[in-house]
Parts: sequence; C-alpha cells; structure tokens
Amino acid sequence: MSHHPSAISPESSRPIGVFDSGIGGLTVVAELRRVLPHERILYIGDTARVPYGGKSAETVTRYSREISDHLIAEGAKLIVVACNTASALSVPTLAPSIEVPLIGVLEPGASAAVKATKNKMIGVIGTKATIGSSAYKKAICTLDTEMTVSSVACPLLVPLIEEGLFEDDVTSVILQRYLDPMLAEGIDTLVLGCTHYPLLKRVIQRICGPSVTLVDSAENCALAVKELLASQTQNPDRTPASNLAAPRLDIVLTDSSEGFLRVAEKSLDLTIDSLSFRQIGK
Amino acid sequence: MSHHPSAISPESSRPIGVFDSGIGGLTVVAELRRVLPHERILYIGDTARVPYGGKSAETVTRYSREISDHLIAEGAKLIVVACNTASALSVPTLAPSIEVPLIGVLEPGASAAVKATKNKMIGVIGTKATIGSSAYKKAICTLDTEMTVSSVACPLLVPLIEEGLFEDDVTSVILQRYLDPMLAEGIDTLVLGCTHYPLLKRVIQRICGPSVTLVDSAENCALAVKELLASQTQNPDRTPASNLAAPRLDIVLTDSSEGFLRVAEKSLDLTIDSLSFRQIGK
Repeated sequence: MSHHPSAISPESSRPIGVFDSGIGGLTVVAELRRVLPHERILYIGDTARVPYGGKSAETVTRYSREISDHLIAEGAKLIVVACNTASALSVPTLAPSIEVPLIGVLEPGASAAVKATKNKMIGVIGTKATIGSSAYKKAICTLDTEMTVSSVACPLLVPLIEEGLFEDDVTSVILQRYLDPMLAEGIDTLVLGCTHYPLLKRVIQRICGPSVTLVDSAENCALAVKELLASQTQNPDRTPASNLAAPRLDIVLTDSSEGFLRVAEKSLDLTIDSLSFRQIGK
Repeated sequence: MSHHPSAISPESSRPIGVFDSGIGGLTVVAELRRVLPHERILYIGDTARVPYGGKSAETVTRYSREISDHLIAEGAKLIVVACNTASALSVPTLAPSIEVPLIGVLEPGASAAVKATKNKMIGVIGTKATIGSSAYKKAICTLDTEMTVSSVACPLLVPLIEEGLFEDDVTSVILQRYLDPMLAEGIDTLVLGCTHYPLLKRVIQRICGPSVTLVDSAENCALAVKELLASQTQNPDRTPASNLAAPRLDIVLTDSSEGFLRVAEKSLDLTIDSLSFRQIGK
C-alpha cells in the first residue's frame, strides 16, 4: 500500500475514505466510481468484526471512530460511512469530532425518498440496529412531517446476499415475508437501507411491482459526495484529469478472510488495485 | 458480578469458564448444568465481534486468547471453548500457553462420532471456518484411519437459528440442500459441528431419518469436562454439596445487544443469575 500522508499530498491525490462493517459498502464505491471516475478511494472493510447490524450504538460508534482515525491518518480528505448501521448509530456522535467531512448513507437516502414518494408513504428495510434506531424515520419526518414511514428489520438478507443467493427461491420467500406488510399498507417508495441490498434490487423490484420506487442509498450517497467535493473546488465538474492522481481503489480488510469480496467484486464489476489486511482497534 | 479472585478461592468455588463467539455456546452450558449441577459457570459471549464462523484462524485465535486471559483473571479453573470455530482454529495454538486446562468441543465430538458410526461414514456440518480447517476430519481420522468423512459448511444456519426459525419451511429447504449430498453418500452419523445446531436437532433428525445418529458436540463436551474434573478430585462423583459454592450461571457479553440471548434462554430452559457487559480486547 502506498498512500500519501496528507501533509505532503495535493488535495486531488488525497483519497476519499470509505468504510463499512464488511464488503457491502462496495456498492457505494461502485456508485462513487461512476459519478467521480478520477478519484482515489481507500476502502476499509471491518471484516474482523462484521456484521454491525445486530450490535449496540456504543460498540458500533467505537468501531467507527477507530476506522475513521485510521482513514484520516492515511490522508483521507473526507470519509464516507458506507454502512447504514454505522450511519444511523454513529454519524451524529462522530461527525462533530472528526477533522474531515463525514458523509453517511442515511441522509441522502432519506432525502431521495422524500423526493420520490407521491403518496407520502415510505417503506424502509435495514438491519435490526438501523431499524431499531428509527434514524430513517426521524430523518424523513424532519424533511417532511406529513410522511408516513413503515420500517422492517430484515436480518436474514445480508447472510443470503453474502452466499450469493440473489436469484434463489429462498431469498424470494424471505423477501416476500418482510415486504408484504409494507406493500399492504400501500407504500409507493422503498428505501434499501443497507448497503448490501442493492445486490437484490432486481428481485425486490419484482416483488414490489413497478409502482414502487426503490431508493438506493448507495447511489444517493455518491451524489452527495460529488456535491460536497464540487462545493469545495473552484471548477468541480471540469477539473482536468491531468491535475489528478490516477484513480485507484485500495482495499484494506481487518481480517484476512476474503469470502464475500469476490462475490461483490464480480457483481459490481469493480477493479481493485490493491488488497491488504491490517488490524484496527487492537 | 462477584467472582472470587482465584488466589483466595477454594477449588470448588472457582467457576468453570465457558466462552463462545456469541450465545450458541449456551447449549454447552445447558449440558454442563445437567451433568455437573453444582458447578459455578462464568460464560463470556463475544457478541461485539460475533460471528467467528467466517473469520480467519489468526483473528479467531487472537479473540480466543483475549477471552481466555479474562476468564483466568476471573479465577476460572478450566476453560471450555464452547464454539466449534474457536475449537477448530485456536485450541491447538492456545492450549500450550494457557495455565488452566482448555477443553474444546471438537475432540469430544469427533470421539463420539467414531464410537457411534457402524458403516464408518461420518458427516460433519459447521461454519465455513470450521469446515475449511478440516479439523473434524483430521481428528476423526486420527482416531480411526478407516473413517470416511464428508463435510459441508452451512453458513445460513446460524442466522436462521438466531431468528428463532427452528420449525420453518425455509430452514427445512436450506437444511435439505446442505444435507442431501451427504445423505446420498450414505453417512450413518452426523456431527452437529456448531454449538448453535443442537437447537435444530429435531428438524435435522427428521430430514436425516432415524437411521442416522446425530452427534451433539455440546453433550459430549460436557461429559469430557466432567471426566476431567473427576480426574482432578479425590471423590468426584460424590463431593458433598455442602462443600460446594452455590451453583451459579453468570453471563458476560462484550456488546449490550442481547438479541438471541432470550431465544436461547427460553429454548434451553436456563436460569441466568447475572448478566453484564464488558469490553474485551482493548
């Protein structure tokens, strides 16, 4: 790994730091690549402690702080919390004490859902921790008090996705159980409130039918990052590529078990320039 | 929590230390309770870093060492590794450097399987890490080189069990997929190589049919602990209860998210005397 310490790097070569409990946040990386093709990205997947979705706010915040400190030490110019659980549980506590901008996936997703709904009935699916925090509900209702939000925790989806069972009868049956009550209530918009879920977009859309708009938090988060970077530079949309470092994607995992990485790499068509393993947070 | 430092405790009041990545190891506690009803048990569930089943030997061994050190500091007279993944990946490395006996679930399970099989064809199910280590296969073939061992990693079972889906069509479908190839090969004995799995014993037996003997590693581990304690005391089977501290079950979790604890407590009919939360490993 050859990241530049921030002290000697021009802004353009400092990486965007991205982290997730594991590999799911690569859906956000794929979107960042699409909207910001010239950026360097340094991704940390906390595979030694994955998943975060069933853990407490205190523990998830501790992990998020350790990883953010690591990304800042590596010169990250901003940090993307590419994990809905960490966004819901730790961003409010962490953001004020971190020296670079911290962007979670939650606010962009909430904002996009409010823009997408016509009948003001929004569904949210996510991990137990994300749904238990009511963070999406609060964010959506802060934007528009007239919104009705239904939420369902879907703890089996991440394991099914990590097994690559995207088009499997079992996945359909489980999804149907989770989604039926919200569909019966008449939601017209569904927030995919976990960075793994875009990998199930096709089957979720099939179960919901064409009248329900799916809001992909990965996509909206990437757009928010683009806007933030644009607001920080003079000529954001047309920075000549010659001024920029070569785009790179460096991945650091906290455990050497690669598992799902290959599933994600293939599904998302990502090129990984380097992969390394480091212990973070002892 | 009121554990006695080992220096001032008589042997009989020192707890048996038990640990698991999470709550699954309570199946071993339930068996310990049955065969050793007078013992104090101190259980640590590493819920801040659960699960271990997809992680590397290096990481799992680091976690196991941190928890073992903690149990020894609490006065544990022996340590039961009530987690097949940790037993497979870390017991061989840890045992020589730990000052009290360390008993895993793997050797007792392997030994019971060798005793149970008639046609010398044994199946083993477990986590990716346990199966990937081939530890059961090695242990079984060390006992009897004529054994044929088929192994299947079953990564979806733990999430299904933690959701309490013991008698659910989805669980049956998934189990059938995992078990069919081994059943077709003609195994007559199946090792439940994960401490969660005894909670699925009924449905697994139904799918395997009556001709397959299920080997519960929890049960055999508890018997091995009883034997070890018996070998260490003069009159093991008839130690008068008046000499013993009152039996207790104290549970320490590394994350405050209780989740599956209530499912396990109810399914296993356990009485928990105290529950507390501590950060271990930093």
